[in-house]
Amino acid sequence: MEKGLLNPLEVMQECVQLALMGKGYTRTNPCVGAVVAKENRIISRGWHERYGEAHAEVNSIDNSPESVVGADLYVTLEPCSHYGKTPPCAEKIVASGIKRVFIGVVDPNPVNAGKGIEILKKNGVEVFIGYMEELCASIIEDFSKYIYTGLPYYTLKAAQSLDGKIAAHNGDSKWITSKSSRAYAHYLRAVSDAVLVGVGTVEADDPELTVRLIKSDRDPYKIVIDPKGRMSLDRKLVKNSADKLIYVTSGLNKNIDKYEKCGIDVIQAPLNGDSLDLHWLSKRLIERQILNVLIEGGGRTSGAFFDAGLIDKADIFIAPIIVGGDRTSVGGKGVESIADAHKLTEVQTRMFESDLLYSGKVSDYAKPVLELTEKMRGCGSCGCGRG
Amino acid sequence: MEKGLLNPLEVMQECVQLALMGKGYTRTNPCVGAVVAKENRIISRGWHERYGEAHAEVNSIDNSPESVVGADLYVTLEPCSHYGKTPPCAEKIVASGIKRVFIGVVDPNPVNAGKGIEILKKNGVEVFIGYMEELCASIIEDFSKYIYTGLPYYTLKAAQSLDGKIAAHNGDSKWITSKSSRAYAHYLRAVSDAVLVGVGTVEADDPELTVRLIKSDRDPYKIVIDPKGRMSLDRKLVKNSADKLIYVTSGLNKNIDKYEKCGIDVIQAPLNGDSLDLHWLSKRLIERQILNVLIEGGGRTSGAFFDAGLIDKADIFIAPIIVGGDRTSVGGKGVESIADAHKLTEVQTRMFESDLLYSGKVSDYAKPVLELTEKMRGCGSCGCGRG
Repeated sequence: MEKGLLNPLEVMQECVQLALMGKGYTRTNPCVGAVVAKENRIISRGWHERYGEAHAEVNSIDNSPESVVGADLYVTLEPCSHYGKTPPCAEKIVASGIKRVFIGVVDPNPVNAGKGIEILKKNGVEVFIGYMEELCASIIEDFSKYIYTGLPYYTLKAAQSLDGKIAAHNGDSKWITSKSSRAYAHYLRAVSDAVLVGVGTVEADDPELTVRLIKSDRDPYKIVIDPKGRMSLDRKLVKNSADKLIYVTSGLNKNIDKYEKCGIDVIQAPLNGDSLDLHWLSKRLIERQILNVLIEGGGRTSGAFFDAGLIDKADIFIAPIIVGGDRTSVGGKGVESIADAHKLTEVQTRMFESDLLYSGKVSDYAKPVLELTEKMRGCGSCGCGRG
Repeated sequence: MEKGLLNPLEVMQECVQLALMGKGYTRTNPCVGAVVAKENRIISRGWHERYGEAHAEVNSIDNSPESVVGADLYVTLEPCSHYGKTPPCAEKIVASGIKRVFIGVVDPNPVNAGKGIEILKKNGVEVFIGYMEELCASIIEDFSKYIYTGLPYYTLKAAQSLDGKIAAHNGDSKWITSKSSRAYAHYLRAVSDAVLVGVGTVEADDPELTVRLIKSDRDPYKIVIDPKGRMSLDRKLVKNSADKLIYVTSGLNKNIDKYEKCGIDVIQAPLNGDSLDLHWLSKRLIERQILNVLIEGGGRTSGAFFDAGLIDKADIFIAPIIVGGDRTSVGGKGVESIADAHKLTEVQTRMFESDLLYSGKVSDYAKPVLELTEKMRGCGSCGCGRG
């Protein structure tokens, strides 16, 4: 039992931790965490555990061992107001007898966006808006990108030498980074809906793209980009993961039949000049409810996604070695000038054995959510108890 | 005035600081710092200020405002025993009446290597060996490489994006890194005997390779590698720094006369397959008393020096941007396999605005000096006062 008054910021931080439990399971839904508190005690916790199942608010209310009448609900995202896969949470909250709701950020989804708050207030629930909002917005940037652009959220993961190489000139790449780095890279897979590689990587390394180095029940989709049909059918991805394999090719591939016969999901994408239309492909991925894509190379593939302006985040493991040669982590055409380079913000670094993990955001889909939240802050209750 | 007993480790650390004052000025001599102490007070300091001038021990003795008879001398490197540009320091110490000498590391130079210690002991001076020896060995790694291999010490300096690029695909490179990074890069020039670039960099950027962003009276030699004679004569290096320019070319250059007429130092190096014989060139640089060379790119040049196994240290500024394309910081052929990659040790990182400076050693010429020092430690005095 906690002592003294609950600090709403601390409680919201706990909600964020809960929300992150859902990472990898919520597909095109946002990750959300919620806590019910009463008389300065947290009495219940919940999060959105899996796409199609109950939302965080519902879980936290239903998990409560005692009555929630008169209690406070803390939730990272505005409760929903609409019937989707589940009934609206705002109505559930009203019906539960909860008296006050503390909301991290307003829902950027236009079908909701303030309507959840409206339902609560109209029914006499006090609403307070904007707690740990940077954090609450940052954990749903994938969802926000989808809402604002209709596209998946792409994270580049690379394991490179200090000079940006992912292989020796003959293709050898095992192992540039340490076992700890590789284990963390498997965690990144575990929280992604799909892992994406180019056919060069498939032919050179014959990767499994499964989660093995950490415990997880997640097995992400595996997307292979192969415009010309170079992938051999004896690859592990085809033999072991046909049901999870999304094979992206183009009209240049004269053997599409051959791949379709393997029972894999074949997408024939239009060409945009010499390369696949990655925006078109992005929409096909969303149709498959793939929201988070981890791009694992090689350099040509990573470069193509940067050139298309699709990359949102980079997690780059840098080993303390120099390799030389030309097998670069991010190839493609590249930017026109240094002033046009893709800038990383909110950079964080941490060590994995002797490797440096350098992480940063390329896009910023937290900003519009924070602006929306700021705009709606005044629509919350005044805290005087009059609702 | 210091109180209490002097801590020899602290005094030696001060000697190291003094030694570093000479960086950039001592050519093929080592940097050395010295302190004279008496009755638990430091009474005098000195360092080897400039090639051909007095050694650190002599300066510290001559600088003393009071008699050094019966005093202690602390010095980062074993005093010399031979006549070079100056008379032997060991004899000067004996003649000065100094009673005890504390030595950081033993001199790796075989003309000395223990002989200085022998002279001191034979003349009744007590000698103690091995204080802050890692530090004392590390500040003379350039000198030790020269002694052990006859070659200059090469430091790679690169200013790159996170994906290892030094330019956009059209060659634009201004500016990848911040002003603070560039100022520190000028400091690296100021402590180098020469700055080395490939002709591609000269033609693309027309650099001055001078020290401008920090205060310094040092103007390093500028070495340009241009096997085929591509360099234009209107470059700033030719117009402003002809007396400091070392132009390295090969028999493939049909216009050697043209360059010689500019009054620049032209070296015609033999070819080793397609590329210049960089080991042969290294010996010509030593003949010119160039011990410390800062390689500033481009990628082909840096790669060639890595391929030749000549690089000793890397200082890589990493900007928080992704550039893509193929203008890599370290090109060349590259290593045969990841297991053969050039490993960096003693890695240090620090920030310059939003850039990360990643520094590490590729070679290790401190180790043999430490081993020699360890071997000689027993040859020091026992500290019982009997010498």
